[in-house]
Amino acid sequence: MAFTFQMNHSIKFNHDEELLKKAELLTPPLINKEKKLVRLGELTKDITKFEGWTIKTLDMKIDDKEYKKDDSLILDFGNHYVGRFAIDINSVGSPMDAPLYIRLRFAEVAAELSHESEEYDGWLARGWIQEEFIHLDELPTLLSLPRRYAFRYVEIKVLDTSPKWSVVFSNPRLITESCVDSDNLPFPKIEDMELAAIYQVGLKTLEDCMTDVFEDGPKRDRRLWLGDLRLQALANYESFKQNDLVKRCLYLFGAMTTEDGRISANVFTKPYPIPDDTFLFEYSLFFISVLHDYLAQEDDEELLGDLYPIAKKQINTSLTYIQEDGKVCADESYPVFVDWSTEFDKTTCLQAIMIYVLRQFIELAQKAGDFGSTEYYESVLDKLVNYSKNNLFDSEKNLFKTEKVEYNIASQVWMVLAGVFPKEMNRKIMMTTIEKLFPIKNIATPYMYHHVTEALFVAGLKEEATELMKNYWGQMIRLGADTFWEAFDPDKPDYSPYGSPIISSYCHAWSCTPVYLISKYLHREE
Amino acid sequence: MAFTFQMNHSIKFNHDEELLKKAELLTPPLINKEKKLVRLGELTKDITKFEGWTIKTLDMKIDDKEYKKDDSLILDFGNHYVGRFAIDINSVGSPMDAPLYIRLRFAEVAAELSHESEEYDGWLARGWIQEEFIHLDELPTLLSLPRRYAFRYVEIKVLDTSPKWSVVFSNPRLITESCVDSDNLPFPKIEDMELAAIYQVGLKTLEDCMTDVFEDGPKRDRRLWLGDLRLQALANYESFKQNDLVKRCLYLFGAMTTEDGRISANVFTKPYPIPDDTFLFEYSLFFISVLHDYLAQEDDEELLGDLYPIAKKQINTSLTYIQEDGKVCADESYPVFVDWSTEFDKTTCLQAIMIYVLRQFIELAQKAGDFGSTEYYESVLDKLVNYSKNNLFDSEKNLFKTEKVEYNIASQVWMVLAGVFPKEMNRKIMMTTIEKLFPIKNIATPYMYHHVTEALFVAGLKEEATELMKNYWGQMIRLGADTFWEAFDPDKPDYSPYGSPIISSYCHAWSCTPVYLISKYLHREE
Repeated sequence: MAFTFQMNHSIKFNHDEELLKKAELLTPPLINKEKKLVRLGELTKDITKFEGWTIKTLDMKIDDKEYKKDDSLILDFGNHYVGRFAIDINSVGSPMDAPLYIRLRFAEVAAELSHESEEYDGWLARGWIQEEFIHLDELPTLLSLPRRYAFRYVEIKVLDTSPKWSVVFSNPRLITESCVDSDNLPFPKIEDMELAAIYQVGLKTLEDCMTDVFEDGPKRDRRLWLGDLRLQALANYESFKQNDLVKRCLYLFGAMTTEDGRISANVFTKPYPIPDDTFLFEYSLFFISVLHDYLAQEDDEELLGDLYPIAKKQINTSLTYIQEDGKVCADESYPVFVDWSTEFDKTTCLQAIMIYVLRQFIELAQKAGDFGSTEYYESVLDKLVNYSKNNLFDSEKNLFKTEKVEYNIASQVWMVLAGVFPKEMNRKIMMTTIEKLFPIKNIATPYMYHHVTEALFVAGLKEEATELMKNYWGQMIRLGADTFWEAFDPDKPDYSPYGSPIISSYCHAWSCTPVYLISKYLHREE
Repeated sequence: MAFTFQMNHSIKFNHDEELLKKAELLTPPLINKEKKLVRLGELTKDITKFEGWTIKTLDMKIDDKEYKKDDSLILDFGNHYVGRFAIDINSVGSPMDAPLYIRLRFAEVAAELSHESEEYDGWLARGWIQEEFIHLDELPTLLSLPRRYAFRYVEIKVLDTSPKWSVVFSNPRLITESCVDSDNLPFPKIEDMELAAIYQVGLKTLEDCMTDVFEDGPKRDRRLWLGDLRLQALANYESFKQNDLVKRCLYLFGAMTTEDGRISANVFTKPYPIPDDTFLFEYSLFFISVLHDYLAQEDDEELLGDLYPIAKKQINTSLTYIQEDGKVCADESYPVFVDWSTEFDKTTCLQAIMIYVLRQFIELAQKAGDFGSTEYYESVLDKLVNYSKNNLFDSEKNLFKTEKVEYNIASQVWMVLAGVFPKEMNRKIMMTTIEKLFPIKNIATPYMYHHVTEALFVAGLKEEATELMKNYWGQMIRLGADTFWEAFDPDKPDYSPYGSPIISSYCHAWSCTPVYLISKYLHREE
């Protein structure tokens, strides 16, 4: 995620200390593994890679060279990691008559090293740029940086020594931070090598976004977003099964609702849990989805008892946005997200998501024994579905339209996922979508691509779904990805949503879903 | 000091562990005092001040304002200090959705804040620029910087927050580091207010250069230089009387001579004692002066026993540079310093310094009971003096000339200090110097101005000496100095020897000597 800037300072939040305590007790220990340098590298042009850059292997050892003013080196740790960095530094020559001044840059992808931070003029905080300027008054020293970075590459540039001495580097290391370890995970047998690679990169993406919560992206915007949590949790159930982390995140959201009961789109956990003042219509609702999906994995009556009332509050709040005729009406103060793109009308998506979640909520109500309410919610569901069928579905075109009479992919996708029609009809809708609306345009995020892919699977279009995965996530790998990116448009492969790759996140949780899609829709059936 | 770049990697040094141990045991404890913020300031044009800049008081409190991207503030601690900096930082507004990124600049004088470090292109290491770029991932926090700085002003610039929150600063503090404390020193009664101010600023300069050794300058080039130590020790005897620190420094130099017995011009003490590979002819000799001056303060037979052989080695080495006729001949590999200026011929200065030190050495030899050698050294002294009188003194002009037949101020000054002629003749020489060679040109350092002033006093020209002090050190104060500077030429008051004030040192040990000059030549007689 990492999206709009909403500022709602006046909103007051409840803090349920009991639920916060439960969240705290579920905090997983972090696994720290030391990773050694794999090779030295050199930034090199390569038009087949992202933004035309790659890191070529340099055939030398780190201590082969004494570095002077303006010299630099690039360390390549061989894969994407999240963690801390340390390196031994010494001087050679005359006594050290000035501080050593160095710049360190941490990069997830090669292209980041082709940009200078001074040039960055985007709207996202430049504080996210992974760049440090360090003075060292005494050598030899172990430089051990206190901050956490997300990176494969470290560029060290010597800004100055003095004319009298040079600097030597040795023993660089990276201490990982994650609450899971893919080394200890049996890798599923995936015959198709391309899919196996997509799975592998998806798994690394998920691993590197799992610390004390499901993070959004470890380089930037490290907080816990509800809509992203929903997808991470699904991928986690198919791989790491670190289900307590999902439970912890549910408690975090449940513990801090607004005075009128809404759940914010994301929470911060450092230095202590803080709910953000950003609200997204379907993100609040996805609290229900995450709870629903979790309870499909684990029987947990205590959790259900604790959180069902909060789930119910979300659905009840959203029901106030439903008109008499069954139409869900968005509101600028409580926007629907769907995708970063603002190029398409999201009204039908909103209608579908409401249906999708309401179905899950009714299941929850039954599990919770709240039988008295079920009938009412089912009547609302009927009204929503009927409105969708009667007012939004164009049976001549076999496609859903929007309020602005737009036929867009996202509307079809969400209506299929919501199960408004049975499978055969969904198949027709998605076939029509492929025929009439593909190739995909104006979808900016792997988050929405996930839903498109899943809708194809749900509609029984396994080959088409697989092809889309290979064309989309596979294309990131061909461009050099070690982990999947925050944003990717195959038509504009070099596009950076914030104007420069130094601020983009190249390991982003909502992009990890091939782990889930492959496992659920392809591997489980093999 | 901070001077030439000599590189002599091949020179091997002895390390006398016994003497090093004695040096270590004499390490003084550091006094740490907390200094509170005095006021907020604003960089303002003022043509009467150094480089045309001053810091004007801002009538607001530090927490009166919430700071956003590109905002900055200047903290004024009211005087020059050496120490560490800490400040409390918090965020206000929405939750902190990005790291705080700030730049801190520490300045001894206002002009430093008018220059950007990117513009600096001088030959001295840019690592000395007192500027830090800091990311803070979590607020509130106490930012406590690990490095030591020399400063009165701290500029904090907010490089980025995010559009959603601002930053507030509070409780900035400075923890001093010095082994002496002028607050506990009775201030001498100096009637002349101008001289009292000069004394005060000199004392602050000395205090801020005294830590675990006599430092050169606390902002930059923090090591112990022998020639500078000589002047600091003299000022110390007249004020703090931290005589053990002088003794420690003598042991440091004495413990680490070259294999052929020479003492290097300076030593580093961190992370452990390291002699520099820079050698200056008279700096090696000044080991004798410092020892001589120390023993005039303290009876210390152990010290004399330990170091007399090393002192003797210095004089013997220098005697190899004396020709048969009594002329001292410089050598490029063992240069004489005298002053940073290279605009004048230093040959006669060298001759005089040799005489000056040899006299002190003969006193040491007598104290050490080395009576067998005394006669020989006295014969050499006679030869040196005779050569000076017969070959260098121009009795028509009443001035000493140089090898290149140059009549420069430094030659007269050092010949007077060396006592080649008796006091009355010295008076004539200095009167002639004033008449014919003043106003002073091409002297770059307070170090040489010290010697000019002292020669005037020695020659009995008290008024002229006092006037020079007021014109020189007094002028630094009028330009805004809280401590005396590394370099100052009253004809070019804005001159920075390294091309930018951000790299110059504005608290430099060799400039502290008015403490000594006023005490010895003016105050003691009042």
